[in-house]
Amino acid sequence: MDFELKLSVIKVNKSKLCELTIAELSRKLFDGEIRATDVVGSCLDRIEKTQETTNAFVAYDPELALETAQKQDLHFAEGVVSGPLHGIPIAVKDNYLTADYPTTACSKIYPDNPVGLDSTMVAKLRSAGAIVIGKTNMHEWAYGATNEESSYGTTRNPWNSEHITGGSSGGSGAALAARMVPAALGSDTGGSIRIPSSACGVSGLKPTAGRVSRTGILPLSWTLDIGGPMARSAQDLRILFNVVSGFDPKCPTTYGICSDNQSTNKGHRFRIALFRSSEILCDDTVMESVEQALDVLRDDGAVVDEVSFSGLETGFGAWKILLHCEAAAYHAKFLEESADLYSDNVRVQVEAGRCLSASTYLKAQQYRAVFNQRFSQLTDRYDLIAMPTLPVTAPRIGQSELEVNNSPITSQDAMTSIAWIANFTGLPATSVPCGFDERRLPIGLMFVGPAFGEETILSVAERYQALTQWHKFAPSWN
Amino acid sequence: MDFELKLSVIKVNKSKLCELTIAELSRKLFDGEIRATDVVGSCLDRIEKTQETTNAFVAYDPELALETAQKQDLHFAEGVVSGPLHGIPIAVKDNYLTADYPTTACSKIYPDNPVGLDSTMVAKLRSAGAIVIGKTNMHEWAYGATNEESSYGTTRNPWNSEHITGGSSGGSGAALAARMVPAALGSDTGGSIRIPSSACGVSGLKPTAGRVSRTGILPLSWTLDIGGPMARSAQDLRILFNVVSGFDPKCPTTYGICSDNQSTNKGHRFRIALFRSSEILCDDTVMESVEQALDVLRDDGAVVDEVSFSGLETGFGAWKILLHCEAAAYHAKFLEESADLYSDNVRVQVEAGRCLSASTYLKAQQYRAVFNQRFSQLTDRYDLIAMPTLPVTAPRIGQSELEVNNSPITSQDAMTSIAWIANFTGLPATSVPCGFDERRLPIGLMFVGPAFGEETILSVAERYQALTQWHKFAPSWN
Repeated sequence: MDFELKLSVIKVNKSKLCELTIAELSRKLFDGEIRATDVVGSCLDRIEKTQETTNAFVAYDPELALETAQKQDLHFAEGVVSGPLHGIPIAVKDNYLTADYPTTACSKIYPDNPVGLDSTMVAKLRSAGAIVIGKTNMHEWAYGATNEESSYGTTRNPWNSEHITGGSSGGSGAALAARMVPAALGSDTGGSIRIPSSACGVSGLKPTAGRVSRTGILPLSWTLDIGGPMARSAQDLRILFNVVSGFDPKCPTTYGICSDNQSTNKGHRFRIALFRSSEILCDDTVMESVEQALDVLRDDGAVVDEVSFSGLETGFGAWKILLHCEAAAYHAKFLEESADLYSDNVRVQVEAGRCLSASTYLKAQQYRAVFNQRFSQLTDRYDLIAMPTLPVTAPRIGQSELEVNNSPITSQDAMTSIAWIANFTGLPATSVPCGFDERRLPIGLMFVGPAFGEETILSVAERYQALTQWHKFAPSWN
Repeated sequence: MDFELKLSVIKVNKSKLCELTIAELSRKLFDGEIRATDVVGSCLDRIEKTQETTNAFVAYDPELALETAQKQDLHFAEGVVSGPLHGIPIAVKDNYLTADYPTTACSKIYPDNPVGLDSTMVAKLRSAGAIVIGKTNMHEWAYGATNEESSYGTTRNPWNSEHITGGSSGGSGAALAARMVPAALGSDTGGSIRIPSSACGVSGLKPTAGRVSRTGILPLSWTLDIGGPMARSAQDLRILFNVVSGFDPKCPTTYGICSDNQSTNKGHRFRIALFRSSEILCDDTVMESVEQALDVLRDDGAVVDEVSFSGLETGFGAWKILLHCEAAAYHAKFLEESADLYSDNVRVQVEAGRCLSASTYLKAQQYRAVFNQRFSQLTDRYDLIAMPTLPVTAPRIGQSELEVNNSPITSQDAMTSIAWIANFTGLPATSVPCGFDERRLPIGLMFVGPAFGEETILSVAERYQALTQWHKFAPSWN
């Protein structure tokens, strides 16, 4: 038995393990073909090679990770398997509380966190056997979508280190793209999981509001925030989502019972709406890639209609009001005590939020109800709504203003200008790679589903990834 | 048959029908002993006699009411019964849309209402056979708890016309106390059903947030508002509540499925907590009546404990912030266009609400969550929490400052100082008469139940009314 194990291990190129998906690694781990220490070792080697260029991690502890992997291997040898993520290394965004690492939200304020506590999602991952390999870089307090502002410095895109990763879960996006880990956690208030997934060419899922616990994630804007998985395939997102989702008695906003959307019916022809609006600026190259992706699905049997929608500009404005008001309420104490420890960029936004009146906030919430009612008419008619995740590929670092279709837009606004819809409505959304621009920067395709429709959007994303190869491309390293 | 009907009618003193409860009237109506026209006629006579003194109604149409009653009688003769409220006259607070009456919220602004539409609760009552006899006076926009401020003038307490009725459903309270109608609708944002029920010596129910539809009720503060029934016995409240409650597709805040509290078990000894707090000012006479009421229930087999609770002052402040912020958001347009049409008293509050920041509002919502979590520990341990509805009996009209236990308090604050708890927590609460002070002004006893616990609190209130006579006393008319 021992002899057989050694023999089979020889077949595997251990240094390349970090490039495999969770599904691939699990199979090898459960077959005894590789060990958790091999996987962690491969990831640590890759982190060593790419961390300086990407700045994806803000903390990682090779000894601790290897020690945990060794324990997993011992358990496995004894016939004990923790769960479906046994031996899988995972990177955690720095706004999730983790028992073994400090949590700073990449702010200099260093919030006063409870010591030794895991956020619920991290605890669920560990129970399922995942190995937390480190904490990833993020936009300071998650209050921005470029990942340029961070107490640990800007995160750099593995596809081109002169470009941003998008944010605020940019470190998780970069870590996945650079094949430093097969799995990561992000959080999403206006696209912060999907934006870096798109900009870094990886896959990310923002769950339906209430389907995962927010306990132990430092908030940005609590009626919009949600955590979620990031990975390199829709299949891996499903594996992670099944582990992290579900009721949490510690989180009053989680649902006890989930009525899953039923359209995963195998024989069903998916009805997809391609979302069009004159209010969305979008680069031609990006839109063409999205249209081509829908052609692939249409050829595969899906019904694809074009639908138009209005009220997006007002909605985007209302989303910003909710964000700024809630963030200002959360930050009031920090701002009073340590205003000088904020970056200018983030402090200005917190201060702006303080000046907004309760009436303005409540009007925004009222518009949200009206908007969501209208948007649900789309999700009632279609299995999912398709749109680009971002109107552009990753802008250059430091480029605060862009031009899209001859109209000026800030990089920050460009990043969130489409993705916010899923937070405003609370609906599930996934971003998967669907091409590259002429500079070899990834393009992302977003699917927004009905409430509790994670299964549907992941099924379509998985089908798309079975038909195409975009998610398999990796940046090249010299 | 026709002959028999006439004979039996002779036995009934028709002029006194207005003094009967819904349960009593229904029995006679269904037995064919009396007709709907008799009931409506008796109520109209009483309205003619007492309206000038009380100013309870702001609109009523005797011809329309009698015409509707005649139709009901014809249907009955044909064997058609509309429902459990067949032939029962009901008075509706002037903030409920009614197809046959204008709806003004007793404001000079006269909001632009849809013509010919009933609010959902009114429509449900009509379907069940109730006859809307008129609209009742209220505090302007429901934005006050004394019913002194109204475009139709102050409502006067039938027990002593120098005293207020309490509000904002003061017209409904006065109409019931003066035996003008057996049933009425009120609405409650900080006690507006229970306050006039207490001050006028009648019974009122504020349902659990989401158990009745808010569609067609002009809002004051939508996270606190709820409509509910007012009557002269807990049994009648149950009859009305069964008709008006339930899911409304037009009201997104109503619950589809209600998990009724199970403690109506007949063999069960009710566990009652007498609520104590050093933060509540309360007149000795009032507190003694409440304690005596609990002695009655204890002698009947209930377990009565005293429980103390803190954080009420902060909670009361937070409740006011929610109220002022939400009201300001709703009134923004009216205030801009017609500031001069507000009473000073109400305009000042709307203007104050405009100055509150979103952070302040959100902090109040956060405190609400913490408070409600703590309060639910009480409703987990007890079937209901008992407390006085008001700390005092009805103040004199024009008396804006009171002294309670040697501490000064405004009449407005005194009215809401205990009742707000049920709106802040969203829990059901009922007020029933439990005595009189030395000036023969009624005292009210409040039961607050767990969420969906209407059945429980009404059962205990009904039991209390079976053991005592307080709810049967009526003001005398010269």
